Amino acid sequence: MNFTIQNVLIATGENYTCTDVQIVEGKITAIAPNLDVVGTVINGSNKLLLPGLINAHTHSSEMWQRGVMSALPLELWLAELYDFAPLDTEQVYLSALGTAAETLFSGGTSVVDHLVLIPGQELATIACAVRAYQEIGIRAFIAPLIQDESLTAGIPTGETTANHEPFFRTTAATLEIIEAAVQQFHRPEEGVSILVAPTGIQLCTDALFEGCIELSDLYNICRHSHLLETKAQAKLAQEKYGCSAVTHLKQLGYLSDRTSLAHCVWLEDADIAILAETQATVVHNPLSNLRLGSGIAPILKYCQAGVNVTFGCDGASSNDSQDLLEAIKIGSILHNVTDFDYRHWITPQKAIEMASLGGAKGLNMAEQLGSISLGKQADLVLYDLTNLSLLPRTDPIGLLVLGRPTNVVDSAWVNGKQIIANGQVTTINVDELRQELFNRSHWTTKRQSQTVAEIEAHYRSVMGL
Amino acid sequence: MNFTIQNVLIATGENYTCTDVQIVEGKITAIAPNLDVVGTVINGSNKLLLPGLINAHTHSSEMWQRGVMSALPLELWLAELYDFAPLDTEQVYLSALGTAAETLFSGGTSVVDHLVLIPGQELATIACAVRAYQEIGIRAFIAPLIQDESLTAGIPTGETTANHEPFFRTTAATLEIIEAAVQQFHRPEEGVSILVAPTGIQLCTDALFEGCIELSDLYNICRHSHLLETKAQAKLAQEKYGCSAVTHLKQLGYLSDRTSLAHCVWLEDADIAILAETQATVVHNPLSNLRLGSGIAPILKYCQAGVNVTFGCDGASSNDSQDLLEAIKIGSILHNVTDFDYRHWITPQKAIEMASLGGAKGLNMAEQLGSISLGKQADLVLYDLTNLSLLPRTDPIGLLVLGRPTNVVDSAWVNGKQIIANGQVTTINVDELRQELFNRSHWTTKRQSQTVAEIEAHYRSVMGL
Repeated sequence: MNFTIQNVLIATGENYTCTDVQIVEGKITAIAPNLDVVGTVINGSNKLLLPGLINAHTHSSEMWQRGVMSALPLELWLAELYDFAPLDTEQVYLSALGTAAETLFSGGTSVVDHLVLIPGQELATIACAVRAYQEIGIRAFIAPLIQDESLTAGIPTGETTANHEPFFRTTAATLEIIEAAVQQFHRPEEGVSILVAPTGIQLCTDALFEGCIELSDLYNICRHSHLLETKAQAKLAQEKYGCSAVTHLKQLGYLSDRTSLAHCVWLEDADIAILAETQATVVHNPLSNLRLGSGIAPILKYCQAGVNVTFGCDGASSNDSQDLLEAIKIGSILHNVTDFDYRHWITPQKAIEMASLGGAKGLNMAEQLGSISLGKQADLVLYDLTNLSLLPRTDPIGLLVLGRPTNVVDSAWVNGKQIIANGQVTTINVDELRQELFNRSHWTTKRQSQTVAEIEAHYRSVMGL
Repeated sequence: MNFTIQNVLIATGENYTCTDVQIVEGKITAIAPNLDVVGTVINGSNKLLLPGLINAHTHSSEMWQRGVMSALPLELWLAELYDFAPLDTEQVYLSALGTAAETLFSGGTSVVDHLVLIPGQELATIACAVRAYQEIGIRAFIAPLIQDESLTAGIPTGETTANHEPFFRTTAATLEIIEAAVQQFHRPEEGVSILVAPTGIQLCTDALFEGCIELSDLYNICRHSHLLETKAQAKLAQEKYGCSAVTHLKQLGYLSDRTSLAHCVWLEDADIAILAETQATVVHNPLSNLRLGSGIAPILKYCQAGVNVTFGCDGASSNDSQDLLEAIKIGSILHNVTDFDYRHWITPQKAIEMASLGGAKGLNMAEQLGSISLGKQADLVLYDLTNLSLLPRTDPIGLLVLGRPTNVVDSAWVNGKQIIANGQVTTINVDELRQELFNRSHWTTKRQSQTVAEIEAHYRSVMGL
C-alpha cells in the first residue's frame, strides 16, 4: 500500500515539526510539508508519528501463566513456570497473537520472541508462532530458546564441581532443530527472522554456544541470549568458568554487533568494557528484573560506556504485561535512583531512540529500521495526541514516555502494511482472540510447584538466605 | 441508589468466591450467594469486585505540566514547576476533573489532593477543586498545600544558619485561610474533607506545624505532609533541628494515627520505629520517587515494623500519570530488588489491601472504607475480567496488580452512587473535558527555568555533584 500521512508531528531532535510523510512500496520516500499525495491520504493532524518500537525480548507463551506466578527469584520462579507450562501448540499460537497485539497497542512493530519450545514438537512450536506473527503482521524475530543442561544446573552448587541429570536431548540434536528452523522459517524479507538463542550460560555448554556461532555465521543470522540476569548466575559463572560470564562468552566468540543480550544486571566494569568493544546490545527488561528481584541493571553505565541499549517486556509471567511503553517508562526513570547526577539521566527522547534505533541495531537492521528516514522501511506508529492520557498538550514524547498512555495508538504499519487503523487491529479478530484466551483458561490462585519444593532449601542455602 | 451485584467474584484471603453483594442507602448490607434483589440488578458475571482504592497523595494542578518537566531532582524540579505554574482557577477545576477521571479509570474512588494554592486566591482555588470533585463524584480529601518559608529555604545551606527571603504571607494569615477552608468546605458526609497539610519540614516553621495541630484537634480533621522525600531534606533537617525530621515532628506532636506522610524515602531505623509507635501512615509514591531520583523508600522495612503503608500517584508533573494501578504495581515490585529474601516481598493481595484499607486507615476512615464488609460505605469498583489485558484467566488480583490493565474498570460507585458505568464516567462529559484540556494548552518542549539557573550551582555544590 502506498500512502501519504499529512500534517503529522515528527520529532526533530528535541523539537517537533509538522510535515507530510510519503510511503511507497513499503519504504519512506519523502518527508516534507505539502507533498503531492501518493496513494491513500492519512490525516496526521494532532497526531505524532514515531518509528515502530521494538519489544526486544519476550517469551510469548508465558502469557498463559501471567498474574499467577509466585513471588520468587528467577531460579525458583523458573521451576514453577516449567511445572505448569502449556504443552499445546494451539496455545503457543494464541499467546503469540496476544503478545503481538499488546506490543502493537503500545507502539511496538517488532517483537523478539525467545520462544520456549514444546519438547518433541520443537518445529511445530516455531511454526505456530510464525503463523501467528504472519497473520497479525508484526515483524517477528523468533529466537527458539535452547539449552543442553537440566534445570538444576542453573543454580550454583557452592562448590566448583557438580553432577546434574543430563538434558533429555543431545546438543547435536538441538542444533539440528535450529538449523531446520532457519531453513524452514527464516524469511527476513517476509518479516520473519530466526535467531540463534541459547538461553544463557547457566544452562548451556560451550558446545551449544559454539554450534550457535557456526549457524549464525553460516546463515547470517543474529544471536540472542540471556546474560547475568541474577546474582546466582554471576556466582555460577565463577564456579563454571573461573571468570565472568562476559569474559567467557567473549572468548567463545559469541559477542558481536549482531548479538543481543537480555538483562545484563550483574556485570562488572570490565564486563561493560567488553560489551562496548564487541558492540553487543543490552536488552533491558526493567519490569521483569524488579518482579523477580533480580536487581537494577547498570543502564546509565552502559550508556556512558557507549554500549547499545534497548528495551524488552520479557515474558508475561515475569512482568506481567506486554506493554512496551510501560517497559520504556520504567526502564528510563528507574535509573535516576542509581546516580544522583541528573545530567546522566535518560530523557524521553533518548528512551525512544533506544527503543527504536537501539533495537534495530541489536538485530543488525539499523540501515532498514528504527527511524523516520528516507529509504527506511515503513515500520511506523501514529499516536493520537487528543487522548485524555496525553492531555493537556505539552511535549508529546514526554507525555508518551513518562505518562501512562492508554488507547493512544491510532495506526501502525509494518513494512508499509497497515496493521492498526483507528485504534483497532485490522488483520485479526481481537474479540475472537479474547474469547479463545478466555475459553482455554480458568480462574486460579497460587499453585504448589513440586520442583520448587524440591530445590528451595538448596537455593536458600547457597544464596545465603 | 440501591442495587444488587449478582454472581460477582470477590476476594476471600488468597482465594475468590462468587457471590451477590447488596447495597442499600450507600452501605453494603448483604454479601451472600443468591440474595433477593434489592434495587437495580448489576450483572457481576466474569467481573471482580474490589473496594475502591485510594490515590493517597497527588497535586492535581500539576497535570498542566506533565510530560514537559526537565529531568531534575526535587529541589530544582520544584523551581521549574513554580516558574511555570498555572495561575487560573478554571485550570485548577479542569485538572482536578482530569486527576479524578484518571484515578477512577484505574480503580480509585478517593483522592487526596495536596492542592497547590494560587497566591491571593487561596479559597477560590479550593472552591474550584471542591466543585470538580463533587461534580465527578469521587470522594475527595483536599489538603491545601501550605508553607511559610521561601523556596530557597528548602535547600541545605551546607552550614547551620541561613537567611532566606521571608515568605510573602505570614504564618497566622496562612492558618486563617486553612481554618476558613475547613469551615466552608469540610463536609465528610458529602464526600469532601479538608486536611491540614503543611508541605513539609523543608519549607515550614514549627509555628505552622503547631497551628495545624491545633486546627486538626479543634475540627477533628486529618493531617498530611511530605516527609523526607530527598537526601537534601534529610540533610536540611539536621541543619535545622540537629536531629532527624521524624524525631522533630514527633516532638511537635504532628504524628498520629490520622497523619499521612508522603514519600518517607530517607528514614533511619529509629525513625521507622517512631512511625510505628505513633501509628502514622506512609504514602508511597514510587513513580515520582524514581522520576525525581529521590530514592527507593524502605517499604519492606515499614511493613515489617508494622507501619501502615498505602500508595499515591503524586502530582502528574513528577509521574506523569494518575494511574493508581500503575503506582501500586511499581510500588509493589520495586522493593524486590532491596531484599533478596522473597518471603518479604509484597504480594498482589497485600498490595490491594494496602491501597484500600491502608489508605482508609491513614484518613481515619478504616471503619467506613477500604474493604467489602457489611456496614461499610459502598465505595466499590467492578473490573471486567474479559478484557484482553486480563487474559488468559489466572488469578484476577495478580493480573490486575502485576499486569498492565487498560480499560478494565466497568463500574465504580462512591457511597453507593454510580460514577462509572460500562467503562464510562456517568457524571461529567469526559469528551468536553478533553476538549477543554486540549484548547487550553499547546505543544511545547523543554523550557528554560530562570530560578533553576539561579540556584543550580548552589544545589550541585551542597549535594556534592
